[in-house]
Amino acid sequence: MPNSDSSIDLQKLAESIKTFDGTSRKGPIASVSEIFKDVADAYGGCIADFGDDAAAIDIGNGDVILFAADGIWGRLIEKSPWWAGFTSVIVNVNDIAAMGGRPLAMVDVVSSTDSETFKEIFKGMAEGIKKFGVPVVGGHTHPEGEKSLSVAIIGIAKKEHIIRSDSAKPGDVVIYAIDLDGRTGPNSPYSFESVSAKTPEEIRKMYEAPQIIGQRQLATAGKDISNPGVIGTLGMLCETSGVGAQIRPADIVRPKSSENSEITIEKWCLMHPGTGFVWTAKPENAEECIRVLEEGGMTAAVCGEMTADRKVTIEDGNETAVVFDFEKDKITGIQKI
Amino acid sequence: MPNSDSSIDLQKLAESIKTFDGTSRKGPIASVSEIFKDVADAYGGCIADFGDDAAAIDIGNGDVILFAADGIWGRLIEKSPWWAGFTSVIVNVNDIAAMGGRPLAMVDVVSSTDSETFKEIFKGMAEGIKKFGVPVVGGHTHPEGEKSLSVAIIGIAKKEHIIRSDSAKPGDVVIYAIDLDGRTGPNSPYSFESVSAKTPEEIRKMYEAPQIIGQRQLATAGKDISNPGVIGTLGMLCETSGVGAQIRPADIVRPKSSENSEITIEKWCLMHPGTGFVWTAKPENAEECIRVLEEGGMTAAVCGEMTADRKVTIEDGNETAVVFDFEKDKITGIQKI
Repeated sequence: MPNSDSSIDLQKLAESIKTFDGTSRKGPIASVSEIFKDVADAYGGCIADFGDDAAAIDIGNGDVILFAADGIWGRLIEKSPWWAGFTSVIVNVNDIAAMGGRPLAMVDVVSSTDSETFKEIFKGMAEGIKKFGVPVVGGHTHPEGEKSLSVAIIGIAKKEHIIRSDSAKPGDVVIYAIDLDGRTGPNSPYSFESVSAKTPEEIRKMYEAPQIIGQRQLATAGKDISNPGVIGTLGMLCETSGVGAQIRPADIVRPKSSENSEITIEKWCLMHPGTGFVWTAKPENAEECIRVLEEGGMTAAVCGEMTADRKVTIEDGNETAVVFDFEKDKITGIQKI
Repeated sequence: MPNSDSSIDLQKLAESIKTFDGTSRKGPIASVSEIFKDVADAYGGCIADFGDDAAAIDIGNGDVILFAADGIWGRLIEKSPWWAGFTSVIVNVNDIAAMGGRPLAMVDVVSSTDSETFKEIFKGMAEGIKKFGVPVVGGHTHPEGEKSLSVAIIGIAKKEHIIRSDSAKPGDVVIYAIDLDGRTGPNSPYSFESVSAKTPEEIRKMYEAPQIIGQRQLATAGKDISNPGVIGTLGMLCETSGVGAQIRPADIVRPKSSENSEITIEKWCLMHPGTGFVWTAKPENAEECIRVLEEGGMTAAVCGEMTADRKVTIEDGNETAVVFDFEKDKITGIQKI
């Protein structure tokens, strides 16, 4: 249930989201996609790539293979190799879920000079594999170099069922769906962890919901919430879709204040929930979309609308503040104009 | 054409292959596969995984998705980020080729604190993409940490056409097929680079040959030659297949001594050719297998036979020396018994 809070300083909140480290880290993506653009366009049946959570490769029989990779910050591996391994599974599965796909398998590349780190990373990954039911089927280990962990994942979906990031339209509603049954993560004040205490059955039921959204074509676009947080992630979706959004922060689903008293709206907007998605939907599909997500175990609610003006603004009924203005701001820099 | 050289010290050669850094680096693979074994077996339609060049995931329509990952040694990125990027494409494409598959797409995870390194890595990858016609469709960049580069690749093949590493049988012949039209790589005395001067058409024709081998079921097993070199890589194939091999080093295809006078048999056995494969085949299929590979532009020849004794030995007609004895030695430690 959304909490109401009338004392938000909108200008300050807008500024903190825009300048947040988790958002500014997304900067290099545009220069990468620029270098690959001329060569990438020439080959293959790729129907979604940079700017989306996973690339979608048309294999010609009505199915697409979804393909994504994520690296884990070196500082998280230093703090806890087990959590780094466990988290690497979550973030990869989320990339496939956000596209409405079913995850199939993962591969990893791990570097470390000490065997204890390898062991802890792999134990964390093994726990993630058990929880999510997605196997690690291969990879590469480097017995030298600074600690690093990269994981890639593949998934599958029907071509007409995938949920892209670049297809939101003005007039769509914005729905956040987050598993609120969690707590601030043990290794970062900006992470919110909700899966480690759940059973594999609960987790798999929860992750079937986005597949149902895709199969029933209930969303016009979607993205899993990552380092930029709830509004920063929506910003990336707006940027690639070439549209804007007007959001009521008080209506963004967040943990009940009684149980997580330290999580203010301001802080929540910068947090990275373990299981959280932002969807856009035609207004007439919003109710069914929310029902499917809540039946899976997430909390979901409409908190705003997509607009034509390529600005992400936040409002409280009295005033508004601009978070991103894509006429001049960039998150990933990948724009559809 | 194989060169003849009667002055090989077999014992010394056997020892140098066995103790080679490129071979001993493969050690951690077994402990990885051990940790994942109980969880990996439980899920998914994976029909080949650890110990193979790529995992093969059955998607149920007669096709399998091939999935592999490779990391590039940090020291190569330090020496030349461009070559690291270029090489990352080659090693990944080789993993799919070794399975008889057609590569579809790659994703990458790259770390560096300086934008010049990013740019050079991506330029090298872009050149590889052009040469091999396989796009990079996504990934993740870390603007912090030690320089690292991980790339994952997917490919596709018919289920009955894939060439595994664990299916060689005693009595099969051993065929090496290597593109000898190259030179010692610019960044390591143990690399032999042959693709940078070739046209995309030449490269794609060469890489169609393993797909034809798969489609005509000409090989019983196969592997791309990697860091352990020609005999070390065969050792890995023997280890996972639970068999042995007897090899005549003088019959292993290698560069003509007039053009590459510094490449002795001893050195060649430790080198990592950019494009090189070891195949095993039923004796009656050897001729056609070699013809297909040579039509693609590689040089190929039979140089030994698979045996039942789980030892890899080298011989020159007079004496023999044991390189690996899998009753007590391990390369990856992944054994089929």
